Amino acid sequence: MQFLLHEVLKVPASDVPGYGDLDPSFTSAVLEEAGKVASEVLAPLNAVGDREGCVLENGVVRTPKGFKDAFEAMKAGGWTALDCDPDYGGQGLPYLMGTAVGEVFVAANMAFNMYQGLTHGAYSAIRTHGSDAQKAMYLPKMVACDWTGTMNLTEPHCGTDLGLMRTRAEPQKDGSYRITGQKIFISAGEHDMAENIIHLVLAKAPGGGEGTKGISLFIVPKFLVNEDGSLGARNAVSCGKIEEKMGIHGNATCVMNYDGATGWLVGDLHKGMRAMFTMMNEARLGVGLQGYAQAEVAYQNALAYAKDRLQGRAVTGAENPKGPADPLIVHPDIRRNLMEQKSFVEGARALTFWAASLIDASVRSGDEAAEGLVSLMIPVIKGFQTDKGFEMAVQAQQVYGGHGYIEESGMSQFARDARIAMIYEGANGVQALDLVGRKLAQDGGKHVMAFFEMVKAEVKAHDGDERMKPFADALKVASKQMQAAGMYFMQAGMKTPNAALAGSYDFMHLMGHVCLGLMWTRMAKAALGTLDEGRGDKAFLEAKLATGRFYMARQLPLCGAHLARIETGADPVMALPAEAF
Amino acid sequence: MQFLLHEVLKVPASDVPGYGDLDPSFTSAVLEEAGKVASEVLAPLNAVGDREGCVLENGVVRTPKGFKDAFEAMKAGGWTALDCDPDYGGQGLPYLMGTAVGEVFVAANMAFNMYQGLTHGAYSAIRTHGSDAQKAMYLPKMVACDWTGTMNLTEPHCGTDLGLMRTRAEPQKDGSYRITGQKIFISAGEHDMAENIIHLVLAKAPGGGEGTKGISLFIVPKFLVNEDGSLGARNAVSCGKIEEKMGIHGNATCVMNYDGATGWLVGDLHKGMRAMFTMMNEARLGVGLQGYAQAEVAYQNALAYAKDRLQGRAVTGAENPKGPADPLIVHPDIRRNLMEQKSFVEGARALTFWAASLIDASVRSGDEAAEGLVSLMIPVIKGFQTDKGFEMAVQAQQVYGGHGYIEESGMSQFARDARIAMIYEGANGVQALDLVGRKLAQDGGKHVMAFFEMVKAEVKAHDGDERMKPFADALKVASKQMQAAGMYFMQAGMKTPNAALAGSYDFMHLMGHVCLGLMWTRMAKAALGTLDEGRGDKAFLEAKLATGRFYMARQLPLCGAHLARIETGADPVMALPAEAF
Repeated sequence: MQFLLHEVLKVPASDVPGYGDLDPSFTSAVLEEAGKVASEVLAPLNAVGDREGCVLENGVVRTPKGFKDAFEAMKAGGWTALDCDPDYGGQGLPYLMGTAVGEVFVAANMAFNMYQGLTHGAYSAIRTHGSDAQKAMYLPKMVACDWTGTMNLTEPHCGTDLGLMRTRAEPQKDGSYRITGQKIFISAGEHDMAENIIHLVLAKAPGGGEGTKGISLFIVPKFLVNEDGSLGARNAVSCGKIEEKMGIHGNATCVMNYDGATGWLVGDLHKGMRAMFTMMNEARLGVGLQGYAQAEVAYQNALAYAKDRLQGRAVTGAENPKGPADPLIVHPDIRRNLMEQKSFVEGARALTFWAASLIDASVRSGDEAAEGLVSLMIPVIKGFQTDKGFEMAVQAQQVYGGHGYIEESGMSQFARDARIAMIYEGANGVQALDLVGRKLAQDGGKHVMAFFEMVKAEVKAHDGDERMKPFADALKVASKQMQAAGMYFMQAGMKTPNAALAGSYDFMHLMGHVCLGLMWTRMAKAALGTLDEGRGDKAFLEAKLATGRFYMARQLPLCGAHLARIETGADPVMALPAEAF
Repeated sequence: MQFLLHEVLKVPASDVPGYGDLDPSFTSAVLEEAGKVASEVLAPLNAVGDREGCVLENGVVRTPKGFKDAFEAMKAGGWTALDCDPDYGGQGLPYLMGTAVGEVFVAANMAFNMYQGLTHGAYSAIRTHGSDAQKAMYLPKMVACDWTGTMNLTEPHCGTDLGLMRTRAEPQKDGSYRITGQKIFISAGEHDMAENIIHLVLAKAPGGGEGTKGISLFIVPKFLVNEDGSLGARNAVSCGKIEEKMGIHGNATCVMNYDGATGWLVGDLHKGMRAMFTMMNEARLGVGLQGYAQAEVAYQNALAYAKDRLQGRAVTGAENPKGPADPLIVHPDIRRNLMEQKSFVEGARALTFWAASLIDASVRSGDEAAEGLVSLMIPVIKGFQTDKGFEMAVQAQQVYGGHGYIEESGMSQFARDARIAMIYEGANGVQALDLVGRKLAQDGGKHVMAFFEMVKAEVKAHDGDERMKPFADALKVASKQMQAAGMYFMQAGMKTPNAALAGSYDFMHLMGHVCLGLMWTRMAKAALGTLDEGRGDKAFLEAKLATGRFYMARQLPLCGAHLARIETGADPVMALPAEAF
């Protein structure tokens, strides 16, 4: 992480406000401390959360044993306030730093970390769109996580298509609204770790018109808040059920019933969708982070097992001749598996940190190019990284053989937990649609052209540099394939939109590989530079280069296959009439 | 299935003994009846088995509610005896027919079907290697499933590397052996559905030498069997624990403790590994079948959901204008997802049925070429089909969005159950090793050359046939890539074995796609022939062609990526020293 922060992203030299404080001794102290909390407090509760799950009794949700104490420890350590606004009690660190710390916590215990993650999302929504009075009333408590937050979008009959929403908001004489309807899949919707829960609810208020146009955003607290900040009456919102899920058992996924609950409008009437959309970059980046963070912890476990478990002999001769067998890691196919995990995780981390730094540049410096670029990247980071993150968690499980299938090993949980990241915050097919149907053409295609140019410039910068050849050459080929796909979409997609949309998922993956290829090229350059200057840990930097060469040689060739699939167009996909399936 | 049996495999015209009886009216009756049992008896118990799991109390394993009655129904219907030897009460149908029926049952309830599946494996081992007295004593009861069977290989410290085995067999004066040791991951090791359980146990008997050489195969019944066939004393074998697993909860995965249990040698002393290997083709084919069967049932569910769930509008204009939204299936990316599932399942079914017919040709007609060919195919069928089967079950789950993550939908179970098939009967990395390290060179490379020639001949047969062009052209390209990979292994692998083994997993997938491409080419030819003759269901046959064209256009391009990865050789994979990970 420090290599990324200081050698690749050149923090603190960057002129983004707040980055100047992030010198290596500071980031080291924060990350080491986060690692301590993660390994000592959060990781030991990961299996407990999976096994016990959450229990709903008489309307109260009981979280797994130990969660409440751990939550108090997180609050006491100031971790929930890390990158929040100092005006409301936050520490004001850049989002980049919150992202790095977030990876550590998510890898240790994804289900647990969602309670504060959702709160952070609700905090951001109120901070961006709330009135001054709302900010003063809710934000300090939410920054401290004395009150947690939720996001209520989905209903039983609609997830992606929010235009079908049925939850209604009736205006009252006192300026409040009565909210009535049912929301489902509400993470952290009800639990026993906070004094109050601040629900952010999308609902239709009268007069807004059909579809998503009538949707507004409301604050609906579990307990109404008095003017002096003390808690008042219980609001008419309750948890009707918690879902039995494939994973993230430690987080309560609730059916929330709003029975004429009192709510207050956040932002403009009938502009609720827009308010949600401004939140989306951070939320989706957070899910993309969950994808690789689960792969990261699964990899750490698989690696330890591969070094420890003795089975078979290296085909080139015994490497542990005094033992009964060699460790698994001698076998080329185990090595391939581990290298795929390692090179993905390190590449995805670089991409995520880079995107976080773009968000900082956008928010803290008003950098519009950075904002446009990150908005283009977000569906790739969310879709590609969660697909691959799950795939890598499954591959890590495979290293354990039969033991990986047994819950006791913990490897199943990493895969089961990682699975949700492909679905929530917009299923990955929706990310692909967002990328190809919306982001490529955004602002006249300005951002995608800027990205293409950036990759081209990166390739050109290493022209003639023999040591960078494995990186620059592979990136060049892949980037041309990405551009050819973009060109195909422009030409074929003009005639028939299905021709572009049938290739959207492949394009998301193609661009994901190019993004990771770009990151590996930059990491290689930074590693070589650091080595040349005689700084840093030589073994670490050389491992970085070898890992990068693996990614370029063995993963970028997938781009050609994605392009070939894209160029077959709509026909193979759409030829069969629905009734002939 | 009938299209495959009668139009592609040309049953009953084949001259394999027993195939003559398989006319369409007979196969239709059998398959329809199997479908009835599967949907009425087995499928309703699938979620029950997952939810309840198996419980160990006082040494007795209780199977989920309803399992025992269903097992009795399977026995009463004669399903357990379908392809068994009539000498022992079997119905003597070809293995091909047992395979077709097996898919139906496995799709309906994989965990349940394992009880009889394991019994069938043990039956085959005793039938092939047992003495006449052993056959007479055990087989009739096992064919009827009054007694079930198990296979005991794995120990806590060894799975793949059986040379490390510690379970010992001490010869007794009466010709029996005393078996002592612990076996783990024993599917159906203990349960309450049969009068007796016949354990087949690998153990080391004195004098065989180091490693796998000393291993012998033993029959260890739960209850000793008297000469008159009645049950005698309880043997010293017991279930010490059942594992908590990611899936197949309805099947008891047992730790089996052998505390000086009485066992009898099967086959030759110290030739236990060879005895196990002769069983392997059928066992691994069965697991490859589990892979696509889980994808098949997941696909059926995803398809129904995609036709039913209304969300969003088709980009080309509303297709359900009177409804609030269009069904999911109008969206190109949902269509892509469904087509990937459908084209894989139908291709894998064809490959599996073809392999089953090769086993019949080998066993019933002594066809050595068929035996060599199927032995080459087995690691591909096991490894590729279970990888893809799991991937497709996960994709099917994705169609459901958030609902797919909720256990109530059943989609999680299909993925969790499918996951084990990538691991047991030799983890898929071991399949790749078997393919590249052993099967390619087997009998001087005769079988792989025969397979290459077979694909070449298939391509040539359709030369100039415009309707077959999408199939023949794609198959030609992919088969050349497969041959180039084979050539690379021969050349580079000569110098360094790691160069071949680092590409083994990619080769398994490359060959898997070529196999499915070959199957789709044959299915297309059969569909066109049937259409030309004015026979069959026109809509069905045209859907077959469209599905095949999808596979050729959108999946075969992956072969190029696999070849590119293979040709990078050992360096990217092996460059990093183990301690630098």
